[in-house]
Amino acid sequence: MNETSMAFRPVDSVLRAKSIALVGASERGRWPSDIYGSLREHGYPGKIWLINPRQSEVYGEKAYPSLRDLPEPADHAVIIVPAAAVPGAVEDAAHRGLKSVTVYAGGVGDGEDPVSRALGDQVRATVARSGLRVSGPNCMGGFSYREKLFAYPNPSLARLAPGPVACVFQSGGTLQFFMTTGAMRGLRFSYGVSSGNELDLDLADFVNFMVDDEETKQIVLFIEGIRRPKMFMRAAARALAAGKPIIAIKTGATEKSASAAASHTGAIAGDYASYLAMCDRYGIINCATLDDLVETTLAFQSGRVPKGPRIGWVTTSGGTVDLLYDCVEQEGSPLAVFTEETNAGIRPFMQGEIKPKNPLDVGIPSTITKAAELCDVVARDPNVDMLAWAGQLPPMLDAWPDAEALIKMVGATDKPIVGFARMAYHMGPEAVAMQDKVGFPFLQGLPATCRALNALWFHALRSGKAPATVEDRKSDLTAETLDASLARYGIQGPRSRVVKDAACAVLAAQEIGFPVALKIQSRDILHKTEAGGVALNLRSAAAVAAAAEKLTASAWQVYPSARIDGFLVQEMVSGHEAIVGAREDALYGPMLLVGSGGVLVELVQDAALKLLPLAEGEASSMIDGLKLQRLISGFRGQARGDRAALEKAVESLAAFYLDHRDKIADIEINPLMVRPQGVCAVDVRVIWK
Amino acid sequence: MNETSMAFRPVDSVLRAKSIALVGASERGRWPSDIYGSLREHGYPGKIWLINPRQSEVYGEKAYPSLRDLPEPADHAVIIVPAAAVPGAVEDAAHRGLKSVTVYAGGVGDGEDPVSRALGDQVRATVARSGLRVSGPNCMGGFSYREKLFAYPNPSLARLAPGPVACVFQSGGTLQFFMTTGAMRGLRFSYGVSSGNELDLDLADFVNFMVDDEETKQIVLFIEGIRRPKMFMRAAARALAAGKPIIAIKTGATEKSASAAASHTGAIAGDYASYLAMCDRYGIINCATLDDLVETTLAFQSGRVPKGPRIGWVTTSGGTVDLLYDCVEQEGSPLAVFTEETNAGIRPFMQGEIKPKNPLDVGIPSTITKAAELCDVVARDPNVDMLAWAGQLPPMLDAWPDAEALIKMVGATDKPIVGFARMAYHMGPEAVAMQDKVGFPFLQGLPATCRALNALWFHALRSGKAPATVEDRKSDLTAETLDASLARYGIQGPRSRVVKDAACAVLAAQEIGFPVALKIQSRDILHKTEAGGVALNLRSAAAVAAAAEKLTASAWQVYPSARIDGFLVQEMVSGHEAIVGAREDALYGPMLLVGSGGVLVELVQDAALKLLPLAEGEASSMIDGLKLQRLISGFRGQARGDRAALEKAVESLAAFYLDHRDKIADIEINPLMVRPQGVCAVDVRVIWK
Repeated sequence: MNETSMAFRPVDSVLRAKSIALVGASERGRWPSDIYGSLREHGYPGKIWLINPRQSEVYGEKAYPSLRDLPEPADHAVIIVPAAAVPGAVEDAAHRGLKSVTVYAGGVGDGEDPVSRALGDQVRATVARSGLRVSGPNCMGGFSYREKLFAYPNPSLARLAPGPVACVFQSGGTLQFFMTTGAMRGLRFSYGVSSGNELDLDLADFVNFMVDDEETKQIVLFIEGIRRPKMFMRAAARALAAGKPIIAIKTGATEKSASAAASHTGAIAGDYASYLAMCDRYGIINCATLDDLVETTLAFQSGRVPKGPRIGWVTTSGGTVDLLYDCVEQEGSPLAVFTEETNAGIRPFMQGEIKPKNPLDVGIPSTITKAAELCDVVARDPNVDMLAWAGQLPPMLDAWPDAEALIKMVGATDKPIVGFARMAYHMGPEAVAMQDKVGFPFLQGLPATCRALNALWFHALRSGKAPATVEDRKSDLTAETLDASLARYGIQGPRSRVVKDAACAVLAAQEIGFPVALKIQSRDILHKTEAGGVALNLRSAAAVAAAAEKLTASAWQVYPSARIDGFLVQEMVSGHEAIVGAREDALYGPMLLVGSGGVLVELVQDAALKLLPLAEGEASSMIDGLKLQRLISGFRGQARGDRAALEKAVESLAAFYLDHRDKIADIEINPLMVRPQGVCAVDVRVIWK
Repeated sequence: MNETSMAFRPVDSVLRAKSIALVGASERGRWPSDIYGSLREHGYPGKIWLINPRQSEVYGEKAYPSLRDLPEPADHAVIIVPAAAVPGAVEDAAHRGLKSVTVYAGGVGDGEDPVSRALGDQVRATVARSGLRVSGPNCMGGFSYREKLFAYPNPSLARLAPGPVACVFQSGGTLQFFMTTGAMRGLRFSYGVSSGNELDLDLADFVNFMVDDEETKQIVLFIEGIRRPKMFMRAAARALAAGKPIIAIKTGATEKSASAAASHTGAIAGDYASYLAMCDRYGIINCATLDDLVETTLAFQSGRVPKGPRIGWVTTSGGTVDLLYDCVEQEGSPLAVFTEETNAGIRPFMQGEIKPKNPLDVGIPSTITKAAELCDVVARDPNVDMLAWAGQLPPMLDAWPDAEALIKMVGATDKPIVGFARMAYHMGPEAVAMQDKVGFPFLQGLPATCRALNALWFHALRSGKAPATVEDRKSDLTAETLDASLARYGIQGPRSRVVKDAACAVLAAQEIGFPVALKIQSRDILHKTEAGGVALNLRSAAAVAAAAEKLTASAWQVYPSARIDGFLVQEMVSGHEAIVGAREDALYGPMLLVGSGGVLVELVQDAALKLLPLAEGEASSMIDGLKLQRLISGFRGQARGDRAALEKAVESLAAFYLDHRDKIADIEINPLMVRPQGVCAVDVRVIWK
């Protein structure tokens, strides 16, 4: 990892600017006009200066020709001018002593266009020389709700009340769609930042700021590429320690997306699997769609932390129950098993013929009070970690005259509670007010509800703990000492001996044990198999002797003048093929992979990937999620494999790699044969640094 | 298949009742009051009779004590009484000569409760004797929009304008959620039916009715179970021939299949997979969520049929493009490649630095006219089969003063056109009015948009064609003639011979060719492998002779008194393991499966399943979608397998099974070894009828 800056840069002067200059202010420009309008409409308390080189007055206020002409330095300047004029304006800002600027134009440093690159280089030079901080370019500015600092051209979003959700989006357009839909569902925001192409200030800086902001409780990210992964992980670790969930969506899950990101924002999208491993380590919830991002962020609004993954479902219809059965299985959401006490408590609420079970179908309760009483019974069950109630918010506040019963139910437990609907529906302002009143979120769609509740538990598992990081170590490993070193970590290859002739080969085979493989050794033969120089599955002394003769004969047939140095006698290894590998990811650092090996590697795509170092028990949980685990546990009459030895091999390779990674870029054992007793590293490949 | 009735039952008197009786009418009952209110509010033109045994007047109108007391028979009766009173009311209806009734109560025939079963039996007896048709029980009635016949207790849904979408939902509660959300998005309905437990009238009957209804253009189903699959498929075939798409959601995706234990084919082709194979054959679009059901139904509203699967995407932001790249790959939606002419036509709309490519990012166009002109350029491209435009409906009609430009653009092509948004947003009444005005649907969410457009093409491929059905044939196949018969269809097992002693085994092995397997044959030994009675990979005459001796010795060790009848000498077959199976699905009839065989069967879950008979080229397309196809095409240095021979084997087994299925319930070849030349049916298992 080669990061340009190993420190967080301050973004206070961007998001909490005490005074602001608007470069490009003009009545005809929609963006500056909207921004100026929002600042005035909401009473931004700082000074606002307008910059226009061709007008002495804009919006009925005095305008200055340039930032250089300001009577005093503004904290921050919003620069809304064409790309060609950006370097000059940035230079003016640095010259006049501003702390930061936001550049809106695209074509400043992005893409392959030489003009764009030159403009970007000029801005970078100013940054390097002056320490001026730049947000953008190719962005749409941001919203700071408590500061009433609205530098994003969207007057209706500026009208929202402040709240706990901070958004940092690399796609400026997507930010306003997310915030608009989120707000209609009841999300409220502390900040909304479009960070654009991140020529200077980036995700790491903004996330770091949000961790320190007391009002921010959740951090929502739209990621095209992570520019300083080490700093990003440092910020994510701080968020984790502070118990502030990061909920993200990232493009680039497929190859083509990476090139699209490159041409659009100049971002370099890292390998997606590595990104997901990083998310796993840092407790970052990664969502597949923007709609999931809304549901999951809503689920975190109560701030409640579940003590386990088991969900108690209280529904009103058999249709919902049927859909839920499929959904919880597909999303891997464990169903709570109600205690007998809970079942007894539920029975009075049910029609005679339906038995209490989870998901619970009680029909539509006559009143909210009844529903709340039922939820209360289920929420008290010690087997229930989270409660999901099939309640849809009413269009009118007075539709639930007894909403107090829900408030009482929520107050009687500290478990997370959500309402959910089997599909999307419209929530008007009164529905949002009801949601605020009862104090728990109402989610939409069954899969999204399952995923959101899974996310609560996932974050609870990670939260408050600082992920371990790796130390740099010196190693004197070489290709020659590799096998011996691996053996010291407990990783052994097949038993084998190099012998000089057929007679010795027979003796060696008897020592190693049948069956064996025999491979001809000759400094003159490169391709043993083509030269007929390999014999497999030899089961007796006679077979070894015969093979030695035959190998020599066929070798001489292909290479008549070859010097035969002897034979390699090797144990034949069978078992279940696994792959175990460790490598340095360019973005996120050392990682370990374990999965199905051999031909299954790409066919089954059965692998678990984790950032190193592994935590206690993590090797085991990696294996638990694999199809390989089914194979070695005797699946379909297959021979059992030594699970404990596989686990040990994973841990050993992790330890080996961490000790020697200053010499090794990538090490892979494939296949690692998982035998009934023990494992055997049949093929070890190393990419040296 | 054993279906109680092999004819469609008429539902006209339910959905087009010319007069109606309301049994259970009372001022205190919410459901009857709501239904009566809707009928009156919308001016249902037929006569309405009220039945209440304890009041002579309800809602200010005359009430009759019983259906028997009606002055003339009503077409239909809505029966909203407790379960215990249902059989009497149904009997009254039959006695008075009504054509049909709808029963709302649960507990009439459902579940294991003996009281419920007895009530159900009474109703069934009345049906059998009288010919009275029954909808429900355990339902919520239905909506007939043009007939102004509203028998579902939801006054706001009754207020919608009529339209082309017919819904038949087995879950009555879910019906109103779907219709409410669908209506807010602009769906309009011809009928909404909750068919409940389908004691009599069922999905097949209602679908059949909708096919004949001229105003109905799309049929939306919520399926918990299909009671008469043969009749359902007949109705689906009629819908397909009429070009009316059936768009469905079905619960039970994760239920364990009843047939799981019998064979691998049965396990893989679980009930849900068989259902999906049926959907595939009949052009039924199956959706995973209710939200998808809305988007997909919307996409079909224009009635346009694409000529191919390629989508041209016109977007306004790089963020959307990045998300789309991931999405089209995950959903398998092919991207159109624009022609040079199209690129030239697009360029004037773009900012300098962005190159035209699909998905297209043009930034936000200044006007709708500009957007429409751009869409027009893309829609004309011969490589574009469908156009998706990133346009979000405005909250106010006057926000798009130049909406005419979109209408013109749509009118200039016959290709399907949709608007789409990157996530959900609220569409108010004016947005719906705008959607109606411009004449194409606006979808929400990227994955759902991809899936909906894929569905248009899928249905176009199937539409207008009648799926082939199978004939019953007589077969005289027996276990003894199985191998010879398979061989006549071109399906051969490994070369093998049964011999009486070791000397003959050597001769047989020399004839067959080495390596061979040797298996002891003894009427007294059941478990050959345990008795040490199998030797594999014998490569020479000496090895065969030695093995024969050893097998006999070890067999006698385990079974001292066993009579040794001789040996089976069998060719050793290697290659890629495939599975090919055919079976009679209990619901949908004969099916064929092909996939990865051996240990991969359940591990990889790599199988394609189709209803028989196969269409021309269908065996090939089944193999195309498999991972097996990658294996046999030389994936990762694997030996190639004979693809043509595999295809032939699939077709041969299909033909064999159709000819002999009156004797065979299930036949499975696993593994079918796909060799470099030819295939070999190593293991054939049959479940005889």
